Amino acid sequence: MREEWANSLSEDLHLDLRGPRLRDGLMEALREAIRTGRLAPGAKLPSSRTLGADLGIARNTVAQAYAELVAEGWLTARQGSATRVAPRTETVAAPTPPKPRHRRRIDHDLRPGQPDLSAFPRADWLKAARRALTDAPDEAFGYGGPFGRPELREAVAGYLARTRGVRAHPDQIMICTGASHGLMTIAQVLKQRGVAEIAVESYGLPVHRQHLVKAGLDTPRLPVDADGAVVGHLDDLPDAGAVLLTPSHQFPTGVALHPDRRAAVVDWARRTGGLVLEDDYDGEFRYDRSPVGAVQGLDPEHVVYLGTTSKALAPGLRLGWLVLPPRIARLAAEAKGERDLHLGVVDQLTMAAFIASGSYDRHIRAMRLTYRRRRDQLVAALAEHAPHTRVTGLSAGLQVLVDVPAGEEDAVVQGSAWQGSAWQGLAVYGIGAFRHPDAPADRDALVIGFSTPSASAWSGALAALCRVLP
Amino acid sequence: MREEWANSLSEDLHLDLRGPRLRDGLMEALREAIRTGRLAPGAKLPSSRTLGADLGIARNTVAQAYAELVAEGWLTARQGSATRVAPRTETVAAPTPPKPRHRRRIDHDLRPGQPDLSAFPRADWLKAARRALTDAPDEAFGYGGPFGRPELREAVAGYLARTRGVRAHPDQIMICTGASHGLMTIAQVLKQRGVAEIAVESYGLPVHRQHLVKAGLDTPRLPVDADGAVVGHLDDLPDAGAVLLTPSHQFPTGVALHPDRRAAVVDWARRTGGLVLEDDYDGEFRYDRSPVGAVQGLDPEHVVYLGTTSKALAPGLRLGWLVLPPRIARLAAEAKGERDLHLGVVDQLTMAAFIASGSYDRHIRAMRLTYRRRRDQLVAALAEHAPHTRVTGLSAGLQVLVDVPAGEEDAVVQGSAWQGSAWQGLAVYGIGAFRHPDAPADRDALVIGFSTPSASAWSGALAALCRVLP
Repeated sequence: MREEWANSLSEDLHLDLRGPRLRDGLMEALREAIRTGRLAPGAKLPSSRTLGADLGIARNTVAQAYAELVAEGWLTARQGSATRVAPRTETVAAPTPPKPRHRRRIDHDLRPGQPDLSAFPRADWLKAARRALTDAPDEAFGYGGPFGRPELREAVAGYLARTRGVRAHPDQIMICTGASHGLMTIAQVLKQRGVAEIAVESYGLPVHRQHLVKAGLDTPRLPVDADGAVVGHLDDLPDAGAVLLTPSHQFPTGVALHPDRRAAVVDWARRTGGLVLEDDYDGEFRYDRSPVGAVQGLDPEHVVYLGTTSKALAPGLRLGWLVLPPRIARLAAEAKGERDLHLGVVDQLTMAAFIASGSYDRHIRAMRLTYRRRRDQLVAALAEHAPHTRVTGLSAGLQVLVDVPAGEEDAVVQGSAWQGSAWQGLAVYGIGAFRHPDAPADRDALVIGFSTPSASAWSGALAALCRVLP
Repeated sequence: MREEWANSLSEDLHLDLRGPRLRDGLMEALREAIRTGRLAPGAKLPSSRTLGADLGIARNTVAQAYAELVAEGWLTARQGSATRVAPRTETVAAPTPPKPRHRRRIDHDLRPGQPDLSAFPRADWLKAARRALTDAPDEAFGYGGPFGRPELREAVAGYLARTRGVRAHPDQIMICTGASHGLMTIAQVLKQRGVAEIAVESYGLPVHRQHLVKAGLDTPRLPVDADGAVVGHLDDLPDAGAVLLTPSHQFPTGVALHPDRRAAVVDWARRTGGLVLEDDYDGEFRYDRSPVGAVQGLDPEHVVYLGTTSKALAPGLRLGWLVLPPRIARLAAEAKGERDLHLGVVDQLTMAAFIASGSYDRHIRAMRLTYRRRRDQLVAALAEHAPHTRVTGLSAGLQVLVDVPAGEEDAVVQGSAWQGSAWQGLAVYGIGAFRHPDAPADRDALVIGFSTPSASAWSGALAALCRVLP
């Protein structure tokens, strides 16, 4: 029995009896024998001398393996008695990993929200990483604070002042893992301050509204018309402590907030002590003129600015920022947590170097040309091939709103995936996907993200879209 | 008045009237004049022709600047009437940034929890980053999922199997920003599943206990003795749905969980359906023998393993992982959130390449030698210079527990900062800083983090410590 066991152990488990890994191999073989039940709980093991002789290896190697497995809890050893399999070690089935969900392949992805990922400036990013790793002080590799690295905050403050008219001292800037993270942080602050409602636009990112709801806030809606959100309606919402807006380029309808409304919403904030949450997700991308500055510049005491690299660079970086009025900076830091959910310091310092070297500006300029060209091609193609559609909104951003005849939105969205039983492989969203649950469904439109395909996939995606449009 | 204003504008604000930035400079000068109140709300601006002539610049440049500022909400322009400063634009004081807290300089930092930051392997990390950026598929730069990049999960699964005896399919691994983030995620899952209590060790990281408390969980304590946490007490806690342990190297007392207790706690989990949360913060660092494998290997269905690079590499990376029993993987993903608090993809892919290339193992081996030497030096120095102290715990990890005579703990902790009115600049923690609020204060000891100083600062820190010890 003893010999048999030892033989079967070395045979069955392909135990390699040479080399420095011998002890480890023996340990793993024993563990496996226990797991599979071949060695039952309570079973007595051969002495290390015997097993060593059987296997032709040093007794000491076996003794070491036993000792390790005792320490790990697989075996027990009592003074003056044999080594045994620990009594509790029931047979445990190998865990079954969760099944990955099967998804049908999307050939033409025109969903909004993602830049052209094939354009990520890998070489320039690596260059910035080299600079960052060379220059970083040792303490940068320690636990960071909730605001993020000072190098990045300074670079962001300069960048936002230069490109977006944002007025901020670096101390007011908080690095986040993206706009969502920033919004969650602010929602928590507002909730703690007793705010019950944050007004949102009738059309917007559902995930943003959900963050607010998860924080325990109600989200009454403001209508959106050709001049952006109807901020005058805030006066009918006495409980609203803040309003979430996309002033530069309303998402997804694509209009700009009218100057009078910019002024009016700042007025509202001053009058009521409320906060304007300015989601400037794609403010850098304007094609018909230079970008309109951020609302934040009008009143840094009443506007929280949310910026992100997700559209300008890559969502995978998880890099965004809040510009905070000084009076809530400390509360936001507490809500974010002292040493918890921060970004990796290498990515932070790399981004700082990427901005400082001018690479960020250069990349944005290049992408602006690319996206502008795509938008022009899209508009021209629709004019030619889809006479019943109408492109609306600014010449800006990474998506357009395409109005379609009443009743056609669902048909196109569903038809882009399947034509009868033939898989079309085209992914587009209707405006309905972005509508506030309380808003009337009075508009049929598609939200076409023209930045999503890679350069080589773009013309195919455009052709596929034209095929399904009315 | 008109001319005077124009002159003072160009003079006071050092408006550079040449070059392509002219319009931007004029815009900023006008904004500043409005901010500071020099241009009052409602004030009429000179026509673009007049101001252009006054300043000696093209009328069109002025008109463009006006148009921009109208779009931003600083100015108003009505058909057929003059451009005016927007009526709402009250003078806004420049925001006062929050004051940084002044902290006295620490010359000798022997607080536990941080590795030697000067040893961060910058060149190898950069090499891994180059590999990562070269090999990454485009889609890696898109929105990631809650589990993290597959490349890293696979590398971690292999690494943990090899070095810690962890049994896991990559699908069970969830990348986090560190052990805290992982713990918060699990706490949320347990709370949602109706768990009311998580047992913790009488000594541990206060921030971990606080994460559980914040999640709405009670944290009854298990005593800790020379064999680690007294897990038999779990039977007196019928409401405990999980237990948080540091089995390999109890923090901060430095003992290992006895093999019988490892078996017993797994038994408890199986019997009750509870979970063992294994915080393996420094399991790689054992100096007297090879590291004892993780409890997770005994029963992957009932143990959640929490790993981190914060001790082995650098806390600034914010990189850790959970190994999840398959039955809670999906719940953990939901708790973590679909696209929110993830790590930057470049850091994730770099870590995957860093592990795959063998750099991580090499770095840990090198640091093991360094820390072992420091620990030996510390033990020898205390034996010689601090006869009333006693080092306890395993030869392992990045900190030691040093027992001091009753009543001496507070004296040393405070005396290390100040000697009378002289700043000593030595930072150490007493064990009291890590004691559960319900635990009796029956032990006076210091927790000395010998990994914190840089190589050049180490001997000075050790000497400073010896000076204040009894």
